[in-house]
Amino acid sequence: MAGNSFGTLFKVTTYGESHGKGIGAVIDGCPSGISLSSEDFDAEMSRRRPGIGAFDTPRREEDRVEILSGVFEGLTTGASISLFVPNKDARSKSYEILKRLFRPGHADYTYFKKYGHFDFHGAGRYSARETAARVAAGVVAGKILNPIGIKVDAFTVELGGIRVDSIDMDKIKDSPLYCPDQKAGKRMMEALGKAKEEGDSLGGIVEIRVAGCPPGLGEPVFDKLDADIAKAVMSMGAVKGVEIGAGFEASRLKGSENNDPITPEGFRTNRAGGILGGISNGDEIIIRAAVKPIPSIGMEQDTIDREGRASRISMTGRFDVCAIPRVIPVLEAMVKLTLADHYLRFQAMKIN
Amino acid sequence: MAGNSFGTLFKVTTYGESHGKGIGAVIDGCPSGISLSSEDFDAEMSRRRPGIGAFDTPRREEDRVEILSGVFEGLTTGASISLFVPNKDARSKSYEILKRLFRPGHADYTYFKKYGHFDFHGAGRYSARETAARVAAGVVAGKILNPIGIKVDAFTVELGGIRVDSIDMDKIKDSPLYCPDQKAGKRMMEALGKAKEEGDSLGGIVEIRVAGCPPGLGEPVFDKLDADIAKAVMSMGAVKGVEIGAGFEASRLKGSENNDPITPEGFRTNRAGGILGGISNGDEIIIRAAVKPIPSIGMEQDTIDREGRASRISMTGRFDVCAIPRVIPVLEAMVKLTLADHYLRFQAMKIN
Amino acid sequence: MAGNSFGTLFKVTTYGESHGKGIGAVIDGCPSGISLSSEDFDAEMSRRRPGIGAFDTPRREEDRVEILSGVFEGLTTGASISLFVPNKDARSKSYEILKRLFRPGHADYTYFKKYGHFDFHGAGRYSARETAARVAAGVVAGKILNPIGIKVDAFTVELGGIRVDSIDMDKIKDSPLYCPDQKAGKRMMEALGKAKEEGDSLGGIVEIRVAGCPPGLGEPVFDKLDADIAKAVMSMGAVKGVEIGAGFEASRLKGSENNDPITPEGFRTNRAGGILGGISNGDEIIIRAAVKPIPSIGMEQDTIDREGRASRISMTGRFDVCAIPRVIPVLEAMVKLTLADHYLRFQAMKIN
Amino acid sequence: MAGNSFGTLFKVTTYGESHGKGIGAVIDGCPSGISLSSEDFDAEMSRRRPGIGAFDTPRREEDRVEILSGVFEGLTTGASISLFVPNKDARSKSYEILKRLFRPGHADYTYFKKYGHFDFHGAGRYSARETAARVAAGVVAGKILNPIGIKVDAFTVELGGIRVDSIDMDKIKDSPLYCPDQKAGKRMMEALGKAKEEGDSLGGIVEIRVAGCPPGLGEPVFDKLDADIAKAVMSMGAVKGVEIGAGFEASRLKGSENNDPITPEGFRTNRAGGILGGISNGDEIIIRAAVKPIPSIGMEQDTIDREGRASRISMTGRFDVCAIPRVIPVLEAMVKLTLADHYLRFQAMKIN
Repeated sequence: MAGNSFGTLFKVTTYGESHGKGIGAVIDGCPSGISLSSEDFDAEMSRRRPGIGAFDTPRREEDRVEILSGVFEGLTTGASISLFVPNKDARSKSYEILKRLFRPGHADYTYFKKYGHFDFHGAGRYSARETAARVAAGVVAGKILNPIGIKVDAFTVELGGIRVDSIDMDKIKDSPLYCPDQKAGKRMMEALGKAKEEGDSLGGIVEIRVAGCPPGLGEPVFDKLDADIAKAVMSMGAVKGVEIGAGFEASRLKGSENNDPITPEGFRTNRAGGILGGISNGDEIIIRAAVKPIPSIGMEQDTIDREGRASRISMTGRFDVCAIPRVIPVLEAMVKLTLADHYLRFQAMKIN
Repeated sequence: MAGNSFGTLFKVTTYGESHGKGIGAVIDGCPSGISLSSEDFDAEMSRRRPGIGAFDTPRREEDRVEILSGVFEGLTTGASISLFVPNKDARSKSYEILKRLFRPGHADYTYFKKYGHFDFHGAGRYSARETAARVAAGVVAGKILNPIGIKVDAFTVELGGIRVDSIDMDKIKDSPLYCPDQKAGKRMMEALGKAKEEGDSLGGIVEIRVAGCPPGLGEPVFDKLDADIAKAVMSMGAVKGVEIGAGFEASRLKGSENNDPITPEGFRTNRAGGILGGISNGDEIIIRAAVKPIPSIGMEQDTIDREGRASRISMTGRFDVCAIPRVIPVLEAMVKLTLADHYLRFQAMKIN
Repeated sequence: MAGNSFGTLFKVTTYGESHGKGIGAVIDGCPSGISLSSEDFDAEMSRRRPGIGAFDTPRREEDRVEILSGVFEGLTTGASISLFVPNKDARSKSYEILKRLFRPGHADYTYFKKYGHFDFHGAGRYSARETAARVAAGVVAGKILNPIGIKVDAFTVELGGIRVDSIDMDKIKDSPLYCPDQKAGKRMMEALGKAKEEGDSLGGIVEIRVAGCPPGLGEPVFDKLDADIAKAVMSMGAVKGVEIGAGFEASRLKGSENNDPITPEGFRTNRAGGILGGISNGDEIIIRAAVKPIPSIGMEQDTIDREGRASRISMTGRFDVCAIPRVIPVLEAMVKLTLADHYLRFQAMKIN
Repeated sequence: MAGNSFGTLFKVTTYGESHGKGIGAVIDGCPSGISLSSEDFDAEMSRRRPGIGAFDTPRREEDRVEILSGVFEGLTTGASISLFVPNKDARSKSYEILKRLFRPGHADYTYFKKYGHFDFHGAGRYSARETAARVAAGVVAGKILNPIGIKVDAFTVELGGIRVDSIDMDKIKDSPLYCPDQKAGKRMMEALGKAKEEGDSLGGIVEIRVAGCPPGLGEPVFDKLDADIAKAVMSMGAVKGVEIGAGFEASRLKGSENNDPITPEGFRTNRAGGILGGISNGDEIIIRAAVKPIPSIGMEQDTIDREGRASRISMTGRFDVCAIPRVIPVLEAMVKLTLADHYLRFQAMKIN
């Protein structure tokens, strides 16, 4: 059982490599009667594309989503929905070095070990391009969540060790880094510039907030909402940690500090992050993801070749300095997929 | 689709409440020919039971696992294996208050919202007792992992804000807190004593290490090994965060610091935590879980009753001060279940 | 992935062998708030037990279902429901011959080939006793179907080559063979008596009718309602064929004869058997299952031993002459499980 | 959970409508290192296309399969494989009548009831065109079965009530009807001609034989090999019945007649059809499928419109007279998909 499907009722199967014909997602389990057109994808797809000022790769595909099936006269039919995003800009030349050497921090080594060979043109299946299919599927998930009033927003709370001092959600949309603190955002940009000069890269922490989630979503004891969110978030190659609500900080609090008192007006605090016992409690769901620095760097590193001989590698070409801006719409998409799936699961059991 | 099953090929379905007839696990997908007897479970089951000195509940069930099916003449037959752990000590009296009030930090509120009513005798399905079934299933998973040489060990790296200074794996087995640093362990015990006096509780951080995992386990792009481990770990009610390798710290490193250089002798460092691109790389797998303080505390807290009226609650009876010692064998079990499942998945694709 | 689970949303996992501690079913995905007690199972469980006059094995267990979990104060809680049926009458002595010889028509040979060894005490996992767990789970499925008005009834339309001339549903409950034609039933009993004298066995055809099924159940293109029913029915060891509506006879009709004309009052005929394009059409669902003669016979047969040497085997002891009476409640249960699952699947997609 | 996926380890998800951009299949779970190219599909795809002499629709697409992902330098990579078959000949004009009327024997009515609206251009998702994706996926399944020596062949044993007298497998490839009896085949052709004149259609019975299947495939107790084959075969819209080995005829045999005696040289007869207790026994697997007459006929029939008013419908245009020739490669594909999946499942449990 390979792992290219996500979800149980709202089930998404993705495919595609960075330098093949394109990438795609098939959604099996989307209810009928939902309006859907190719244009619905444009905004999210363009968010995922590279492009913050001077700091990322200039490759600039026009990622238009083609709907190959499942929609008739503008409405979903209940049949499986096939979404396709053609690859436009396939440059294999700059990846010749990958035929020989394993890049540190990349999956070259493990794919080679697992599958016996690997698609060295642009990292094949583990290319970041794969996430375009996630974003496309996330748009359809959003169509299920919107009418219920569920809203998912992700933003940067830390980058290169610089943490925000305050969170002003209105500032996010104006920031190329999705930073809710204008001052911190400025310092983050400076840190990015410095890292770029050094041929190095930076990581950071993204917070995802879900507003409007009704109580009751999540299926104990294993498919708890936080468990499935953790999987969704950790399924991103760049993510090395995930926490809910107070998260790791909760481990340092006492019970009397960490418990959220319940009042007739609702929970007084939200250290639980909107989930109790694996089930949404109606409060805002709060998730944080630790994003590692991009492994492709200009600095020379130790590695080995396919025969196991010591070698040195330095990546030329233009690379992003930080994955966060591109990761943010994907993280939102993954959380949306999780919530849409759990909403249908919740729905299935409401027989009375 | 309810969530009481874990795994895809090595699939475990659990059931049972704290004060019913017992709890159990059915394993569908265990290969035939593996030796298994009731005694195989004793050591792990007794680790999960409460009992560190003065700091935990005196309830002391003899958790013996009965094998109801799937084993013949001491060997697994390939049929589904049914494991049952009878409840011996059902005291419902002390939980009368739960008929009326929602306990802060517990799942009373969300279960009531989701299922319309709830089993107030000892928290029903979301009782910690549920995890006994996980431990029992984990023993069977271990039977698959042992011959391959995969070993899973968990220990305490932080408790009540006290962090270990060093890790000496040999110290773990002598410590009631599974603490690999004797001095830190002593301070942790003092902190527990103090919290107990105050009627409060503490949390901490558990590290899980997997030795001997061959490269190749994990199924991109969604069922990555780290993604499935994150789900497994976060499916514990007490866990609010999970990280792999450098984890959240990785978000503060530069690419040049975070990338593990590859040498003919292997990876020079292990910031990746043994997983690259969602596939095990042959190195030690390193996981950390943030455990929240136990929500049941003696101190009085604000809450509401089922009709939504403001009330105060203070839990009487004896409660654990910290979940960590009981959580550790369960976390090991969850990681074992994940690895056994991924090992069979890996195995399925080896057709040549 | 072993095959001891059935269903996707209403998911049943069974376990147990004929001569172990008992057999059981765990249901994951039963909605909360449904009344359920141990007594609810008695009628169906006693139907499955052997006992038509002189023609079947005198073994007569009291099959009482114990509810081990998932029910609180008489109502399902939404947690996994564990049902257990203890084995009362474990006689292993009469099966000693199975240690050495493969019985023709039984699964001895294939289990040995697949699993390397097998539980020769009463056929282990492939004993007919396994179906007791199906019947128990079917009772819970019935609790979901009853309020919707879905009713499932199975009866004998052919036995030992004797076919019914007419179908009077009221006659079924009075017939030990569930035969809806009193005269034919009498001749079937005579045929059974004769076969018994000869040390031989008989097969037959069972028809299952589902009344009250609303239109819309079934999930094209693979999980069509008829496809899942076919699997459910064929998953019975004794069944060698299954047909829907006109079935094999449809293959001999012309399109103009086989098409059911549609009128404002509904379908004029029902050759489709209540399913069109894999989706229920609101009409009665009609299924037929071909049941093979019981392979355990007194007559001597050729076989081989475990080392592959030619041998002869004749089964002593008392065996049923025909599986049909015991198979009928199990077939009803399997169809109920399929319908309950599809009802929840249907329900999940009704988001508007 | 919608039903557009088939299989568990070798998992195929299909999409596409008859008059959209195309149809496709995504295969998740194909092992790496298998040679695969676009040409590999040509032979099977052209078998599925219409075209027996004068008796079928003249629509003649060039069904070329595009590999969108999962193959690199001619070998599968272990990533999900995306296969796409563009629609070339989209004529919507002739289907205008479907906007208003439900065609008897078709799924118009049930799709409308289930999904609220339906794609009336050429029957949308329930068009026979959907099966092109099954055939494409079946080719990849064949790549797994071929090296093991498993071979799947289907042929016509009855058409329009005319049954073959003998089976000569060498005759099949020369017969437009895949008929293994030249004389019977001739009479079948005459029957087709006559039905065509009358504006009517015919059905028949297809037999599928699997040679070279090793013992051990099949996962009791629910995912028995025959159960999964029954589902696979019945998931074809045109199939109304399925039987294994002696099938319905077994229900008329005595135990002494139906049991296959076991000898040192193997089973003396094969009434079991190669499957015992749901597990392949190493013998030839024999399956028969009842194919109904095509519902689209020229003769006028009673029906209703979307508002439920009585009406008459007669299908103009050119339609196939019998589905069998086109169904045969699809049935082969479905059996191949089932076997490839079960082979991987078998493989997963071979850990020793």
